[in-house]
Amino acid sequence: MIKPRTPTGVMELLPRDQIAFQRMLDTIRRIFEGFGFLPIETPVFELSEVLLTKSGGETERQVYFAQSTGTLEKAEAGLPELALRFDLTVPLARYVAEHEHELAFPFRRYQMQRVYRGERAQRGRFREFYQCDIDVIGKDALSPRHDAEIPAVIHAVFDALDIGDFTIQFNHRKLLRGWFEGQGIAGDAQLPVLREIDKLDKRGEDAVRATLAGEGFGLSDTVIDQLLAFSRVRSTGHDDALAKLEALGQGTALFEEGRDELREVLHRLKALGVPESRYAINLSIARGLDYYTGIVYETTLDAHPGIGSICSGGRYDNLASHYTRSKLPGVGISIGLTRLFWQLREAGLVATADSSVDVLVTLFDDAGLDHALGLSQQLRAAGLNVETQLEPRKLGKQMQYADRAGIRFVVIRGDDEAGRGVVAVKDLRRGEQFEVADADLARTLLVEREQWRALGQGAG
Amino acid sequence: MIKPRTPTGVMELLPRDQIAFQRMLDTIRRIFEGFGFLPIETPVFELSEVLLTKSGGETERQVYFAQSTGTLEKAEAGLPELALRFDLTVPLARYVAEHEHELAFPFRRYQMQRVYRGERAQRGRFREFYQCDIDVIGKDALSPRHDAEIPAVIHAVFDALDIGDFTIQFNHRKLLRGWFEGQGIAGDAQLPVLREIDKLDKRGEDAVRATLAGEGFGLSDTVIDQLLAFSRVRSTGHDDALAKLEALGQGTALFEEGRDELREVLHRLKALGVPESRYAINLSIARGLDYYTGIVYETTLDAHPGIGSICSGGRYDNLASHYTRSKLPGVGISIGLTRLFWQLREAGLVATADSSVDVLVTLFDDAGLDHALGLSQQLRAAGLNVETQLEPRKLGKQMQYADRAGIRFVVIRGDDEAGRGVVAVKDLRRGEQFEVADADLARTLLVEREQWRALGQGAG
Repeated sequence: MIKPRTPTGVMELLPRDQIAFQRMLDTIRRIFEGFGFLPIETPVFELSEVLLTKSGGETERQVYFAQSTGTLEKAEAGLPELALRFDLTVPLARYVAEHEHELAFPFRRYQMQRVYRGERAQRGRFREFYQCDIDVIGKDALSPRHDAEIPAVIHAVFDALDIGDFTIQFNHRKLLRGWFEGQGIAGDAQLPVLREIDKLDKRGEDAVRATLAGEGFGLSDTVIDQLLAFSRVRSTGHDDALAKLEALGQGTALFEEGRDELREVLHRLKALGVPESRYAINLSIARGLDYYTGIVYETTLDAHPGIGSICSGGRYDNLASHYTRSKLPGVGISIGLTRLFWQLREAGLVATADSSVDVLVTLFDDAGLDHALGLSQQLRAAGLNVETQLEPRKLGKQMQYADRAGIRFVVIRGDDEAGRGVVAVKDLRRGEQFEVADADLARTLLVEREQWRALGQGAG
Repeated sequence: MIKPRTPTGVMELLPRDQIAFQRMLDTIRRIFEGFGFLPIETPVFELSEVLLTKSGGETERQVYFAQSTGTLEKAEAGLPELALRFDLTVPLARYVAEHEHELAFPFRRYQMQRVYRGERAQRGRFREFYQCDIDVIGKDALSPRHDAEIPAVIHAVFDALDIGDFTIQFNHRKLLRGWFEGQGIAGDAQLPVLREIDKLDKRGEDAVRATLAGEGFGLSDTVIDQLLAFSRVRSTGHDDALAKLEALGQGTALFEEGRDELREVLHRLKALGVPESRYAINLSIARGLDYYTGIVYETTLDAHPGIGSICSGGRYDNLASHYTRSKLPGVGISIGLTRLFWQLREAGLVATADSSVDVLVTLFDDAGLDHALGLSQQLRAAGLNVETQLEPRKLGKQMQYADRAGIRFVVIRGDDEAGRGVVAVKDLRRGEQFEVADADLARTLLVEREQWRALGQGAG
């Protein structure tokens, strides 16, 4: 006998939690499609040679390789042929470069698949997790206007997910680097400083100040003061964001370019009707990754800052330089849904869902089975999800089962009801019971379901 | 520069094909949920020790193992810790055994995920493919009534997928083994004979006859004649199925048990309203797998027998004997959707889908952008999928783009329209153009979309 168990670092759910998770996936997909993003899926494994174009990075250290039994036995030297994707960005780059001549640009794609990282086992760390990504990829150029549409998508997603108030925060790499230039920090010296600024949240001002003043950086107190003051800038509201950008004073050409793009984003967000309480500039956001070159986004839950950013991304200059000579600038974001779902559950912000089953058709004796089967099919034809009790059991047991399973409607047809051509319906959510003619059952239940949905009482 | 390409044996789709594929997945999910099956997802990798409870089988030879860079460098002896699932049945067994006390039985689950097999590279053979499975798992016992619900699900799925006429064919292991008993083939001698009968389609009667008469079998001509006559039995219609079962004459207790169960399935299928043209008994179906113990199903497209079975499964006595002492009988089916989709495309039975985008909002000059953004958001709020043209282009170019992308509605607002508070809508599917007031646009497009759907003109 082998103990049934999963590897560590994966999230496996019981059905009602899976339904809750699936509803989040469906909601995200609906919003992504609403904004005109097209679906793609890529294979879980890529050729190692194609996936691992860079070497040595932390992510590459965590890559999983896949080998079939045959290959394993041969034990050839060198890297295995196949490796599991560790994000959706490298597969996107490969996909766009491979299918470049079959795609229309700007190419707007969404992708919601699992990715794999050989993380050390630790609570809340996942070796397999969903990413839900959108990206807009231009050919040669991509207008900064696309930068404004992305926060509108983020807004629509988290508004629809209904997990509490949130703020989409952004900064701009050109603004940051332009500011650094103005402080005499230029070229290759910028990235290490950027990385330190990005650690402000974790390390605190004092620690970052010490590092920037110390060996390898050696920045003056005045410069450090300026950097920290800059990084403390946060806006509250649309006009405040514009005012705070204005108050930064004049800067280098790069700085002004970044500021102009941020102003355009703010302007277009208003045209898109995104409420001003939902977005803010936050000049401390740098995003550790080297490849962002323009706007960068983070999104936080107002009541749960400890969860950190629940949706991040930004603008990059060239998606697929390893695979094609075409210049493919883009902008995109990613939601790490497995981790988010886990955190929301820990914080008590998502509940176990009601069942995807709307109706349980009960059964008291074998003679009633054919009728129960026919009735169930009628309800299904009307668009309801129906489980038929195929073996007779006591009503109490069947009721208890429906209650525990989160099924809302229990349809009962005893001899009395059968004689009168009606069924009794127990509505476990409202705690009510009513009778309805056989022929009206489907319509009645559909109306009840729609009313409940319209009341915003869950997606049930 | 690295050539961007996928490994062999995977199916990667361009967006419009991905949309067609996604619609099939959505349809299957809708039907599975309609019959009260609950979703589960399991991790792509299982512990090797848990996944590979048997050894030596062909499937096990094809297993992919996953190792992170760190583990690979250590190169420990023995099997790697993790292996990719090669089907959804073993993960289901592990899941049910692991969560046995948290699940309600009969446990009805659906699962639609990709599985992995180290197949040799060959056209139409996939190393990564979707399986869409349902199973009903009982604890200790599971009524044969569940066997009748499964073909009703198969019927609903392929009716909804709308890929042509199909026939759900079934046989029963007890009927088969009872028949063998009657011919003096008992116990361990049955399985090899069953395997030969299962090859009738591929090898033909003469070859199978030769094998059964030859070494290792040594069956008499009379017995072989009886076996072949039995395996030729096919029904055409409900009453014919009952008559042909009757005509088999009396048999052993096991035979009668199988026949009774088949009769019950036929009876319940009628109660479920499944058209009799959609199902038939076919006594040549054996299904190679050893673990089926009752009814077995195959489904074929009437006009494309060469595609083979597009949905197969059956009844088994004990799902998870490697993981638990509880007896868990079940019945289920699997649709190999990647292969099916590929075959349907080869046969010209699925077309590239229209875009998931309903509307393209065009743009002629920068001054119109804010209006275009606001209008797009209005349409989205009404439930339409909208792409906004963010950079001005010639109308012809924008129209051409929408046409190639499969977007149905193009919304145009020139100075003339703007002045009159209307927009022009080009309906690329109907080839018509009309004007509508700004405020009525969303409702008009929704009505058009619903009408098109009601006409059965695609899920667009």
